[in-house]
Amino acid sequence: TQKDHSDLASFQSERVCVFGTGDMGRSLGLRLLQAGYGVVFGSRRPHSSSSLIPHGAQVLGHAAASQSAHLIFIAVQREHYDFLVPLANQLKGKVLVDLSNNLRKNQYPEANAEYLQSLVPGAEVVKGFNTLSAWSLQNGPSDANRQVYICGESVEAKQAVIAVAIKLGFSALDQGFLSVARELEDFPLQLFPQWRLPLRIAIGLSAAFFFYLLIRDIIYAYVTQSKDISFRIMVSLANKVCPIVSLIMLSLCYLPGVLASFLQLYRGTKYRRFPDWLDRWMLCRKQLGLLALGFAFLHVLYTLIIPIRYYVRENRTTQFDTTTAWRGDSYLSLGILGFGLYVLLGITSLPSVINTLSWREFSFIQSKLGHLTLLLCTAHTYLYGWNRFLSSSTYKWYTPPGYMLCLVLPSVVLLLKLLLITPCVDRTITRIRQGWERGADQRNPKDSQPLIP
Amino acid sequence: TQKDHSDLASFQSERVCVFGTGDMGRSLGLRLLQAGYGVVFGSRRPHSSSSLIPHGAQVLGHAAASQSAHLIFIAVQREHYDFLVPLANQLKGKVLVDLSNNLRKNQYPEANAEYLQSLVPGAEVVKGFNTLSAWSLQNGPSDANRQVYICGESVEAKQAVIAVAIKLGFSALDQGFLSVARELEDFPLQLFPQWRLPLRIAIGLSAAFFFYLLIRDIIYAYVTQSKDISFRIMVSLANKVCPIVSLIMLSLCYLPGVLASFLQLYRGTKYRRFPDWLDRWMLCRKQLGLLALGFAFLHVLYTLIIPIRYYVRENRTTQFDTTTAWRGDSYLSLGILGFGLYVLLGITSLPSVINTLSWREFSFIQSKLGHLTLLLCTAHTYLYGWNRFLSSSTYKWYTPPGYMLCLVLPSVVLLLKLLLITPCVDRTITRIRQGWERGADQRNPKDSQPLIP
Amino acid sequence: TQKDHSDLASFQSERVCVFGTGDMGRSLGLRLLQAGYGVVFGSRRPHSSSSLIPHGAQVLGHAAASQSAHLIFIAVQREHYDFLVPLANQLKGKVLVDLSNNLRKNQYPEANAEYLQSLVPGAEVVKGFNTLSAWSLQNGPSDANRQVYICGESVEAKQAVIAVAIKLGFSALDQGFLSVARELEDFPLQLFPQWRLPLRIAIGLSAAFFFYLLIRDIIYAYVTQSKDISFRIMVSLANKVCPIVSLIMLSLCYLPGVLASFLQLYRGTKYRRFPDWLDRWMLCRKQLGLLALGFAFLHVLYTLIIPIRYYVRENRTTQFDTTTAWRGDSYLSLGILGFGLYVLLGITSLPSVINTLSWREFSFIQSKLGHLTLLLCTAHTYLYGWNRFLSSSTYKWYTPPGYMLCLVLPSVVLLLKLLLITPCVDRTITRIRQGWERGADQRNPKDSQPLIP
Repeated sequence: TQKDHSDLASFQSERVCVFGTGDMGRSLGLRLLQAGYGVVFGSRRPHSSSSLIPHGAQVLGHAAASQSAHLIFIAVQREHYDFLVPLANQLKGKVLVDLSNNLRKNQYPEANAEYLQSLVPGAEVVKGFNTLSAWSLQNGPSDANRQVYICGESVEAKQAVIAVAIKLGFSALDQGFLSVARELEDFPLQLFPQWRLPLRIAIGLSAAFFFYLLIRDIIYAYVTQSKDISFRIMVSLANKVCPIVSLIMLSLCYLPGVLASFLQLYRGTKYRRFPDWLDRWMLCRKQLGLLALGFAFLHVLYTLIIPIRYYVRENRTTQFDTTTAWRGDSYLSLGILGFGLYVLLGITSLPSVINTLSWREFSFIQSKLGHLTLLLCTAHTYLYGWNRFLSSSTYKWYTPPGYMLCLVLPSVVLLLKLLLITPCVDRTITRIRQGWERGADQRNPKDSQPLIP
Repeated sequence: TQKDHSDLASFQSERVCVFGTGDMGRSLGLRLLQAGYGVVFGSRRPHSSSSLIPHGAQVLGHAAASQSAHLIFIAVQREHYDFLVPLANQLKGKVLVDLSNNLRKNQYPEANAEYLQSLVPGAEVVKGFNTLSAWSLQNGPSDANRQVYICGESVEAKQAVIAVAIKLGFSALDQGFLSVARELEDFPLQLFPQWRLPLRIAIGLSAAFFFYLLIRDIIYAYVTQSKDISFRIMVSLANKVCPIVSLIMLSLCYLPGVLASFLQLYRGTKYRRFPDWLDRWMLCRKQLGLLALGFAFLHVLYTLIIPIRYYVRENRTTQFDTTTAWRGDSYLSLGILGFGLYVLLGITSLPSVINTLSWREFSFIQSKLGHLTLLLCTAHTYLYGWNRFLSSSTYKWYTPPGYMLCLVLPSVVLLLKLLLITPCVDRTITRIRQGWERGADQRNPKDSQPLIP
Repeated sequence: TQKDHSDLASFQSERVCVFGTGDMGRSLGLRLLQAGYGVVFGSRRPHSSSSLIPHGAQVLGHAAASQSAHLIFIAVQREHYDFLVPLANQLKGKVLVDLSNNLRKNQYPEANAEYLQSLVPGAEVVKGFNTLSAWSLQNGPSDANRQVYICGESVEAKQAVIAVAIKLGFSALDQGFLSVARELEDFPLQLFPQWRLPLRIAIGLSAAFFFYLLIRDIIYAYVTQSKDISFRIMVSLANKVCPIVSLIMLSLCYLPGVLASFLQLYRGTKYRRFPDWLDRWMLCRKQLGLLALGFAFLHVLYTLIIPIRYYVRENRTTQFDTTTAWRGDSYLSLGILGFGLYVLLGITSLPSVINTLSWREFSFIQSKLGHLTLLLCTAHTYLYGWNRFLSSSTYKWYTPPGYMLCLVLPSVVLLLKLLLITPCVDRTITRIRQGWERGADQRNPKDSQPLIP
């Protein structure tokens, strides 16, 4: 216990300095205090600032404050960095952590951290913590933003920052030299980079099918029968576009996996990289799937309000026959079960749910249940078409209806998948995934380990 | 590697003591063992307890156990603390961690930890870990409850506890002196403190509109036409109250942000605090929005079951005209799209989803998409009213129908927001948010950093 | 600051070795580099591998690499472990971390880590990190998979591995000796172990009620009236099975809690373990509830599409009377409110939402709101039956309809719960939960602490 005591005493002396008493500086200071650090704020007007800073911290002039600690957090906007120039001498050998962010990308020719380094060449600048908000600093790290990215030239300086991060409850990742700073500064400014491609695909498909169906349904009726049914745009047309886009995007979500399997089969190895376009496609499968779910959700709502629209209700023939009833009920039932699985897939895409799944559980849901969903939704669409595939009146102006077009891709994906799960193909694929290579000398030990099998 | 070895040897000797072999004590002990600590349990009846304690731990009498470690966790109920009095001598200089909780607020005149300190004045009492359940101790920290709050007089003692917390996978936050203990003890007893105000608003609005519509619809029909349509309370009336309350609460969710912007514009600076009522309002925006979503969800369900209620189905005129169809379909379509966005806002409010968003992404969704949702839902309601605004038969007993009343607030919010996004106002607001102050000398460096811009 | 500097210098020298340059080895190496470690890869063909390994790491032959560090991660498949045999001398005293996994349970007679130990008896083998995927190593730990399980014979070796885990942002849990390795290796291979029992119950109940209703509804109509209504299987029958199974499973979710309370009441203490079957039942309550929600969701969808099925729409008598309207509307309204609460329960079961709740909040929602949900859904079903309970035509072939059968269990659960919340029983239960024991001498201090009360 003697030893414990002396260890504790050394803890107590750790002190860090924070320049800047804005939101960010104050939140960081509070958190540092709570983690057991001594905190000294540096301020231009130490007397007027002392009321602002968290209880337990000291506030001094910049020069005095910088003498009290080895590590200095710079929580000041870049425009005001020039106040550091006269302090260059005092800051020699200190670790300066640049927390700053910009308002937009490419606002300045060089990264803020590089600019800071050029102003105070004797100090060791580390970029870091800028991806956190004052809010998350105050309230503590949660799941995803537990990670703090840092970069800088000096390994020692980065180690000192990593040590502080760990004590604050974060986990710091060294991203390399100071030249990476620009990337880190762009990070909080990014707006859904992984969603862009899937969103563009969704918008493109929606627009294409909207105009296709506008011509086939509404303009056709106007031209051939002089009937104005333009009001159908709002619900009927929307309820055709939504399921079509949903089904196509769901199959786009499973197509790259199937293609990748065939590529591995053709190459006879898993040790060659996929082409870039396939890699990028595979990385946005989750987003494709979630957008597909969104369209399916709208389709469900648009379908369920049909009976409310009494003002356009047509007098359907109430002639009853068992075949029609079987077909209609199966069509509805498959749709409901498909949507149920769809929602299940969506829920298991939530970050906190994924985290509770083992690798095998995740792959079971996203692959097995995913393909089952695709199968149910495709069957649902085939039943919708039913015997109209063969009737010539379906092909107005010689064009097939939307649901036929949208069946092509899912049918192809399902057929390819069916091929892949035939025993002989499946065996080869499994062996390749376990590291087997066609034509390679199998006696050589491979320095490799599959992702958990 | 020589050095590594000696480091490891010092690890091994760390030993902690746990008093109490109940659920909490055992779970804590197990976790400590798993993190590599030596654990000694203190028990009144060491022999009979030895079967209960986790494998690998020792169990001794209280006095003997207390000799074996510097840090002692007190996992015993406050009622039984008096057994510590005779041990006061052995406990001198030890760190005692009080884990206890009470059954209700203000159960005792002073905090348990303060009471413990008064019983064993020579020890250094630290309050902490009490916000964790035995369950979360055993299963490991997850997201939000990774944070362990501690308080106590001695910095050294708190540092020792922080060190243990970090090794167990938690992140400890020092909340100050022992006088804060009562707050920490009240923490696990709190019941949705941030939901109270929004819930009261929701209940108040629901009750007010329920009675208003009860009079206008059901009592009016009874008085003027002697018709008993009281059954309408269950579905029709509910389906009027739900959307009204939902829309009002959604606009209450966006009103404070708009007010805050105008206040900043008026004051010409962002460096003055908002009035307290505005602060409190802004802090419960998320709860207001989620309650609004709940009411919208009920409204959707109540609407969709309308056609099932064949027993009250009125024979609507099936007279068809294109204007009615356009109006009706647009009304439904706007409602569906609005609800779709509503659900999207709800999903992005989930803690695990928020964590994956950058600040800019979060603000895009909650502000841009949020106002779009408000716009769609308001337009949906206007279309519902349509031309009835001008017909005098709408105003039974000279009162306007519910949907008219509920349109006032969202219309105001949208108008104010429209003003704020006109280029000239928007430019000023942006400059203020970047730290510009009207009338201030702009050459002065400001010690401030905006939340990631 | 002198002291700080020397501390930092010692950081820099920490070096670890990774054998294997596959996905797992490379991801681990990258993460180690980012956490500030020096990383040396061991490879059979160091020259050809040097292009693969992350920037900043060294690659050497196995023998040379093993000399450079005390800790060696073995990221190689078990089939290739024999390359370590000739290195046994160099590996003496080193810590070898076995990361490997198998393709299926019981693939080999002994655990991989035990096999490794037998090949290199002089080394200290630690099993660990195998529950992580290469992906999660690269992207950093998130919530649940922050936990790394390790086991091994040497406490020193395990401490060294724990220290690395903490620096990588994980939290390591020592599970005991190397004999536990098999369990850790089976962990990533498990497929929803806690869902098995609830899924079997759900499937069993669905099948039983499906055949029961098939006979009562469809075969009965065929036999007695020669009517073929087999198409009703797809929607009408499904819409009877779903709500029945949902209600039964919801009551199965609350029954064990009620039974446990009565058991505690009967025994007069909370300090005796529940029987195993009750423990297991209580541990799968969440899964039972979520499956019940799934069935309720399908029931809602199946109900809402009823009016779309114009081809089977019967001409219901449109005879209107207020009692029928009250009953019908109440039935629907209770169903909607019940489903709303159901969904709320589901949302609060999400891991990230649970984490934000205090213990008292969680128990308020899952217990109070849960029983309210059960009450609403049971009342909804009673209203569905209405006056048909007494009409003999309801009992075709002397069998009661499905909804009557499914009312038994929830009614029992609700009655028992009602008993438990009567003041006198409630007082006794509360005292027992606080540690009171019937017949025990209450003056004895108890070494126990309830889970946060």
